[in-house]
Amino acid sequence: MGFSANILTLYPEMFPGPLGQSLSGKALEKGLWGLETTQVRDFAKDKHRSVDDTPAGGGAGMVLRADILALAIDAVAKPDDPRPRLLMSPRGLPFTQKRAHELAEGPGAIIVCGRFEGIDQRVIDSRQLEEVCIGDYILSGGEIAAITMLDAIVRLIPGVMGNMESADTESFETGLLEHPHYTRPSEFEGMAIPEVLTSGNHKKIHDWRLAEAERITRERRPDLWSRYVCDEDEVD
Amino acid sequence: MGFSANILTLYPEMFPGPLGQSLSGKALEKGLWGLETTQVRDFAKDKHRSVDDTPAGGGAGMVLRADILALAIDAVAKPDDPRPRLLMSPRGLPFTQKRAHELAEGPGAIIVCGRFEGIDQRVIDSRQLEEVCIGDYILSGGEIAAITMLDAIVRLIPGVMGNMESADTESFETGLLEHPHYTRPSEFEGMAIPEVLTSGNHKKIHDWRLAEAERITRERRPDLWSRYVCDEDEVD
Repeated sequence: MGFSANILTLYPEMFPGPLGQSLSGKALEKGLWGLETTQVRDFAKDKHRSVDDTPAGGGAGMVLRADILALAIDAVAKPDDPRPRLLMSPRGLPFTQKRAHELAEGPGAIIVCGRFEGIDQRVIDSRQLEEVCIGDYILSGGEIAAITMLDAIVRLIPGVMGNMESADTESFETGLLEHPHYTRPSEFEGMAIPEVLTSGNHKKIHDWRLAEAERITRERRPDLWSRYVCDEDEVD
Repeated sequence: MGFSANILTLYPEMFPGPLGQSLSGKALEKGLWGLETTQVRDFAKDKHRSVDDTPAGGGAGMVLRADILALAIDAVAKPDDPRPRLLMSPRGLPFTQKRAHELAEGPGAIIVCGRFEGIDQRVIDSRQLEEVCIGDYILSGGEIAAITMLDAIVRLIPGVMGNMESADTESFETGLLEHPHYTRPSEFEGMAIPEVLTSGNHKKIHDWRLAEAERITRERRPDLWSRYVCDEDEVD
């Protein structure tokens, strides 16, 4: 077994969810990666199985208790477990394609899903949780964020995608957004496939695709474009 | 019915998936939002029900055909349908909390989920699909991206969250990442809750939380921090 994920959550029934189908689902069946869930509520100490409490200092919402989450983490991640401990959180560093590659090459991940207003900072500190953010928006909990992150990772695990070549020209792999695609029929509602693509001239096709990828990146993502231009300069 | 989503996909069985549980699942049961799926493959014309073909100009992967996807879109989105037509795609503009609010206040969305290498550009152009990207990484398809986007939107629909106050102080709402949280027990493995939070002094608690939110944003997200500082300057 290569990559093995263990999810700490109050909603284990959300997994594998969409990860149980299509590409990642087939890979899960074949044993190319592993997925376990741990119900944090099983580590509650009272008869109501409560895991949260009101925030110190007041305010809305509830906070997941440090002591209960620590028990759950310790039960799953033994001291010699080499897997990074990730906390899905809007306060984290942005998850990127580069990080997806790093994680896909590693032993897996312990993934803590936040809920409520947040989790007690002391368990983040003491258990060295690395906060990871999948985008600049707020979700109802960390579960869907974990599913998204895992989908990005799993497809990069060797053997999961049939055609690895497909990955190399994708958006974020080259630093550019991908060029437009066309396929049959050759005419659709009066619109033809751009002539260059049916020319058979590989050099011209390559140049056209690169120019289109550059144009789209410049127009839509000036942030990626300026990074791309900087990197190109360094190579020169 | 306020917000109503229609998903065009090759994997309708992925829905509602995790959206059928917890906050968004309860809201779905209560009819606070609606979710329908449309199987794009039902619009294929041959006996193999094929929907894709090889890319014009060569290269890896397969491309979703413009004509078949156009038929599916036209069956779902009548000309007077006011809902925006979104295509989940790494080439799109980044999805943000601001866009989540806009969509939550609207009539819903037609959401096209990409698969394979991509979809024929001519259907994006002719059906005016707005490409939306949930983060700078590649997923196996648009379905999980759609689930993520919908979760962010649905919790903002009036009546879905019990306590709307909870949303106002969250990361991305104020332009800052959120301050740390603490709750009982007052001591955890020798670590106490910061004294100010148990002082009962609301002014001091507010100031401490703001200072912490600013520190965390500055350290982790210089991009958000510089935007926040600019906006503050404009207010002055």
